[in-house]
Order: sequence, then C-alpha cells, then structure tokens
Amino acid sequence: MKKIIYLLLLVPFFALSQATEPSNADAIFIKKLADEILTNGKAYDLLYELTKTVGGRIAGSPAMYQAEAWGVNALQQLGAPAVSKQACMVPRWVRGSGDFAKITRIDGKKQVRALDVLALGNSLGDGKKVEAILLAVQNFDELEKRKDEVEGKIVYFNNSFDATLVKTFEAYGKAGQYRRNGASQAAKYGAVGCIIRSLTSSTANDPHTGGMAYNDSFPKIPAQAVGPRDADYLWSLAKQSSTVKVSMATHGKFLPDTTGHNIIAEIKGSQFPEEIITIGGHLDSWDVNEGAHDDGAGVVHTIEVMRAFLAVGYQPKRTIRFVLFANEENGLRGGTAYAAAAKEKNEKHIFALESDEGGFTPRGFSFTAAPEKIAAAQRWLPLLKPYGTSSMDDIGGGADIGPLNRNLNTPLCGFLPDSQRYFDVHHARSDVFENVNKRELLLGAVNIAGLIFLVDKYGF
Amino acid sequence: MKKIIYLLLLVPFFALSQATEPSNADAIFIKKLADEILTNGKAYDLLYELTKTVGGRIAGSPAMYQAEAWGVNALQQLGAPAVSKQACMVPRWVRGSGDFAKITRIDGKKQVRALDVLALGNSLGDGKKVEAILLAVQNFDELEKRKDEVEGKIVYFNNSFDATLVKTFEAYGKAGQYRRNGASQAAKYGAVGCIIRSLTSSTANDPHTGGMAYNDSFPKIPAQAVGPRDADYLWSLAKQSSTVKVSMATHGKFLPDTTGHNIIAEIKGSQFPEEIITIGGHLDSWDVNEGAHDDGAGVVHTIEVMRAFLAVGYQPKRTIRFVLFANEENGLRGGTAYAAAAKEKNEKHIFALESDEGGFTPRGFSFTAAPEKIAAAQRWLPLLKPYGTSSMDDIGGGADIGPLNRNLNTPLCGFLPDSQRYFDVHHARSDVFENVNKRELLLGAVNIAGLIFLVDKYGF
Repeated sequence: MKKIIYLLLLVPFFALSQATEPSNADAIFIKKLADEILTNGKAYDLLYELTKTVGGRIAGSPAMYQAEAWGVNALQQLGAPAVSKQACMVPRWVRGSGDFAKITRIDGKKQVRALDVLALGNSLGDGKKVEAILLAVQNFDELEKRKDEVEGKIVYFNNSFDATLVKTFEAYGKAGQYRRNGASQAAKYGAVGCIIRSLTSSTANDPHTGGMAYNDSFPKIPAQAVGPRDADYLWSLAKQSSTVKVSMATHGKFLPDTTGHNIIAEIKGSQFPEEIITIGGHLDSWDVNEGAHDDGAGVVHTIEVMRAFLAVGYQPKRTIRFVLFANEENGLRGGTAYAAAAKEKNEKHIFALESDEGGFTPRGFSFTAAPEKIAAAQRWLPLLKPYGTSSMDDIGGGADIGPLNRNLNTPLCGFLPDSQRYFDVHHARSDVFENVNKRELLLGAVNIAGLIFLVDKYGF
Repeated sequence: MKKIIYLLLLVPFFALSQATEPSNADAIFIKKLADEILTNGKAYDLLYELTKTVGGRIAGSPAMYQAEAWGVNALQQLGAPAVSKQACMVPRWVRGSGDFAKITRIDGKKQVRALDVLALGNSLGDGKKVEAILLAVQNFDELEKRKDEVEGKIVYFNNSFDATLVKTFEAYGKAGQYRRNGASQAAKYGAVGCIIRSLTSSTANDPHTGGMAYNDSFPKIPAQAVGPRDADYLWSLAKQSSTVKVSMATHGKFLPDTTGHNIIAEIKGSQFPEEIITIGGHLDSWDVNEGAHDDGAGVVHTIEVMRAFLAVGYQPKRTIRFVLFANEENGLRGGTAYAAAAKEKNEKHIFALESDEGGFTPRGFSFTAAPEKIAAAQRWLPLLKPYGTSSMDDIGGGADIGPLNRNLNTPLCGFLPDSQRYFDVHHARSDVFENVNKRELLLGAVNIAGLIFLVDKYGF
C-alpha cells in the first residue's frame, strides 16, 4: 500500500518528461532490485569470505592469487555468463618483519618508549637501526624554514587532518602529500629517517600505511607512520624537550614484478552490445589488514549488482562488465591494463563506475563527465533518493577507471558513501570485516544497481 | 579560498529572497558554528564521561541521580547562564538478577541449551522457573489461528524486521507491537511465558530489551527477548521438532515511584524573551547498557549546541532552553512534566527539537508543523546541506517533546541521523561509547545548532 502511494507521488516528477526519461516503471524496477538486495543480498557474506579466507591481498603476494581465484569462483557461482582474467604485470612490495620505532633518549637521558608504527607502502629499508635526534615539524613550510637543522636527523611531520572539512576526502587530499613525498623532502636536506602523522581523523592510535614514492635524486630513507595518539605524544614531547632521540628500522623491499589479473564478468547487451558499461572495485588491499572497506566493499558491491541483475532476470540493453581490478594501491596496473586493452580493441566505453570509498551508508555519486550529462543524470535523483542518494556532483570517478577517461574519454562515476568513518580504518589494521555494517553495505549496492540500470536503459 | 567560493555559490539561492530570509551572512555564521564544533567540540568527551562514569541510568535508579548531577555540572562548567532542576515522579522498575531461558528437552529428550535473553522492560517475574512446551508463531495472525494450542505453553514470536524498509524506524514501528503487547496477547489464551525475537536488524546475537506493558485483564507472565541468532535457532528448531521444552525465569518488579528531574539550562532571548525554543534529549537509558546512542547522543548534542552558541558569542533573540529530560524510556514523565509546567505558566513555546535517534551521521530533520512552516524551513536546506542535511520532511519530533505539541500545539522537530546502525545497538548491551563515532556525533550537533540558529533568527 505504502509502495503504491510512494509511486504515485513520483508521478508529478515525470509528468512532463519525454518517453526516454525515467518513469514510474523505473521506480518499480529499482524497488524490485532494492528488495532483492536488501532481502537476499550476498555482499555481506561474500565480504566475510574474502576478508576471512583470503585476508590482506597486496599486489604480487600469494594472497593476491587466492583473491583472484576467489573472485572467479564467486562470479561463476553466482551465475556470471562469462568470466575472464586479464593479465598485467604488478609490482611486488614486501614489508618484511621487525619494523620498529622507539624513543631512546630524552634530553640525553635514557628513556625508552615504543611507538606503534607501520612502514609506508613502497618504502625501502635494510633493517639496520637508524638512531638520530628527532626534528618535529608541522608541515613542509616549517621544514623549509628549518632546513639547516635537518642533516642527520629523523624528521617527524605532524600535519593533521583538517577537521573542519566535512568531506573527509578533501582533508585526505590536503594531507596526502606528507605520506607520498615527506621522506624525500626530508632526505633532500639530509634526514636519515622520516615519520609522519597518519592520515586519519580517528580517535584510536592505529597507524595508517599507504603508498609513498621516493624521488630518485635523494637517499631512500626509512619512512613510517604513527597513529594519532603517538603523534600527539611525539609532538608535545618535541615541544617540551630540547633533544629527543629516536631509533627506527624498516625492512621494505621490491621483489621482481609478477603477473596479476583483472577479473572480469560480462553480461552481453541485447540491443547495443558494442556499448560497454564498466562497474568495478579493486581486489588488492594493503598487507596489514583485511581490506574490508578498502576495497572489499567495492568488490562485493560489484558482484552483488551482477547477482541482483541476474536474480531479477534483468537483460541489459548494453554490455555490462563487472571488474575486480588488480593492484590499485601501489601501481594502478590493473586499471591501466584494462584501459589499454579497451583502446587497442577500439571498444566503445560509454560509462564507468567505481566503488572505492568504503561500504558505508550511501550519500550519492560524483561524475567526471560533460555538464549536460551530469544534469541529465540529476533527473534520476528522485528515483534513488528513497535509498540514500541525495547528490550527484561533478569531479569524481575512481583510480582504477581513471585511465579509461584519459585513454577513451569515458565518463566516470564514483559511488559516494558517507565519508566520516572511512579514514578511521583506511590502510590501518582496523580495516576488517567487523567494521562493516551489513545494511550500509547492501544499501550501497542498491544505489549502484539503480544507477547502472538507468545508465543502461537510457544511455549516458 | 574554497570557503569564499562556496559562499559565492550560495548567492543565487538567496538573490530573490526577502530581507528576513536566509542570507550569506547566515551561511558564514553556520560555518563558524560548524568550525567551532568540529574543532573544539566537547560532545564526544562528554559522552565518554556520561557513559563511563555513570553508565546505564534507568529512571529511579541511583545512576539516574548521578546522571542528573553530571548534567547540572556539565552545563554549569560549560557556562550555562542558568541551570535548574524540574521535579517529576518517575517509575522505578528493577530487573533483578538471575533471569534465564534455556531449552531443556527436544522431542522428549533432555538437551540443554542456554539462550541469551533479556527480560523486557516493565515485565514482572517472581523468579520462579516456568517450564513449558514452546509454541512458536510468526505473528499475531498465526497466534490467533492457533489460539487453542496456547494454553500452558511458552509462546515465541518470531516476527522480524522488514529488511526492505530503508528507514529502519518504519521497520521498528511495524515490529514494536510484539514487544509491547506480545506477552498479554499470549497470556490471553493461557500462555505461561513469552519470548520475542528482538527488534533489530543486527547480525549479532545480542538480545534487545525495551518497554512493554501488561493488559491488566490477563495474567502477567514473564516476557523476554532473544537475539537474532538464537531467534533463528528457536524458529528452525520449532519447525523441525514436534516438542521443544523451554525453561525460563524473570525477576522484574516495580519499587515505589520516586522523584526524578528534568535538567534545564536557559539562555534568555534578547529581543523576544517570551518566545521559547526547546532543544533536548533524554538523560535516562535502559539498565543493560551505557545508553550511548539512546540517548547519550541526544544529551551531548543538546549540551554541545549550548556550548557552541556561547563559544562563538551568539546572543539569541529568543529564549533557548536546553533540556535533559527524565524517564523517556518507561514513562515519559519528564516530557509530560515539562509540558504541564509550560501550560500552567502559560509559556509561549514556538519550537521544540529532540535528538533521540542516535549519534550517527546526519541526514535531515522531520517536523510536526503546519505545511507552510515546513515549506518555509525547507528554504534553509542549502544552508545545512554542506553539513549533511538533505531532507526536511513531515511527521516528526521526539517522544519527550510530544506533550508540548499535545498541550500547546508547539511545532516539533526531530533530528534524523542515518538510521541503518541504530537498531544494531538500540536497547542492547552493545549501546556503548565505543560504538559512537566522534565525527558523526559532532556533525549532528553542527546541523542541530544551524537549524536552531535559523529558527531563533527568523522565528517559526
């Protein structure tokens, strides 16, 4: 009854629309998809399997191959008409074991306190202990001002998330340079080690790893992150002591590149099979956690959308590819290979969507597309609003689908769940299954399925 | 810089507005409130204090008095110009200890399995073991059809949350009758005990308590809730066995009513001091948890909004009352007393807002008010959208402020955070501080502060 009233309420929205614009039939079909996903959804159980049987799955690791086999099997078991593997060379960074950092002396006096650290991804270390005076700076500006003090020191960057930015990805964007470039910026002035405040808004002390890159012009010094509580401690200690001595070691190294795979399921279009819609997430994760939100959620969203389409008997007009990308975290080799193959085969990619911001409650989508296309998509908002989508903005997409846009000018779309909790767990040990909520995860799949259905039906 | 661009973007929204309608100055002031709360907010630390030093605080308990003293102190410490206590008689239900339920025989064979249960709030029990055959039914319809089988049995209601309802409060609304009336409906046909499936969408097995009421016409039988996993087990067991014997006992009783208090802070209006705006949450909780989301969040939202107004030096035009209500959970005596006093003093209450749906990421507000007032409030949406408010709907409010509407026709408003996780913890042992996210909690206060500012400035 309620359902019927709701559908009638939609009528005014569409009364003036053209035949090709969304209709009550669309509202009914999206409700069917939603009911299927909220009632019979497998995303949560799939995530449990991926996180608990495979766990962390960094590119090139044995777990990467387990994850690929799991993905092929899951897609096949759920009825994918065709599943293929697309090979690409991936880097193989290995963290090693025995990393540490500790305070050893304060103002000359022996005083040992261990810090909870994680080496940054791609960082190198021969495991030899580096012991030096700490130079704590707030940011690159302060480093620049104090560059004459850096020689022989371990530099600590205390740059923290901007709490006033409601969209936490903006805070991440601002702070990310310290993780990516902090070590080489410090090494440029003679630093022998680098520690950064983790990129997080969390209240817990977990350190957060993530990709960094060395500038080949400077020494490749050990690079680590500390969690917020250790960061606050280090910072206040540095302010009140004239010398703080720190000892640290890392063991990161690269093994030779190896072959990884994008896992691709496809449902052929009935009317415009040459027009391809891609939906995906990345199968790899960092090595220190289960990659539950990053990006197990995107992986199971992708599989769930396929499952729901098949379960309700939806026959798409266009070809839909469900892609579990390889190696997003420290190479983007999967996304690059996917776009290169698309270009080589002269494929027509009309739309690509990625879910890589976690399995949280849905908020909306963001597009990289011509303004008139985004405006057209915004007419679909009333259809998705009952499920949590309240905005469709510009400047969005996802790392793995980026090369499709650069190579083929494909319009991109990123699924936007609520971002408040993402950086609590992002690249930290706490990114585990237990921190994903079933209904939030399933609702993400509902909104993505609804949007993909509309793109398939009306084009983009 | 970004800030300025954002404000300029707001200009078109207001270019045609009247002098009394929201302006860029409002956007700037709300940003000031938001920055204050997101940077210096005390809500999370206050919640820690309330949950960890007081803990569960059911009406009439010693903890209720501790919570009242904590509330007075917190408001005073944060600079409330005036704090008062408003007395009201509250019920005093005591759970007692030693409650249990267990399966003792399956198809005549001894087979003991304990169930994790919580007695329903207000239920009575003399602690004597009740042992009887289980009659498992899906709902009241099935009970009615099988009423001849009920005599001497323990009735189990397996009614579950409707997973297809995106707004979980709607599912709660549908399922709530089993908790409230299940025991007496079963006793009507001779049942000797009643167990219900908890009102939850959780994947965990925690049982959820909550208020029930006996119909005085029928025996007051023991009433308990089991969590979802035990519920699934009971249901499948009942389907596959001809007799399942269950043993249970509860120890609930009422002690004489005692005096509780609403805690009220007030900032006098500078221009229309006789016009009163109320914002509140309820200070009591159930006894089995810390009442972190229900309704510690509403309590600290209320205090935080006051703190932020004072911190930025806001002098309201109208009188704003910040109310920590007594005894929402099993009596509503605080809200009733507040409205009765308002009526007796012939006060002019122009608006009342309650936060009692948890400390989750904000989504919007719902009003009980004349349609033209809601439409007027909707013009404020662009001002609150940057902080998460995307809807202002009708039919809303909060239990504690309900009597104000009934007595004085005061327009009501309920703060609506995202509802997906609320019934995971609602009235369960898991409603603890650790399940509240700092940024989600603070953002709630931002949106409430913004709305109250607008109501104060423009009236309602």
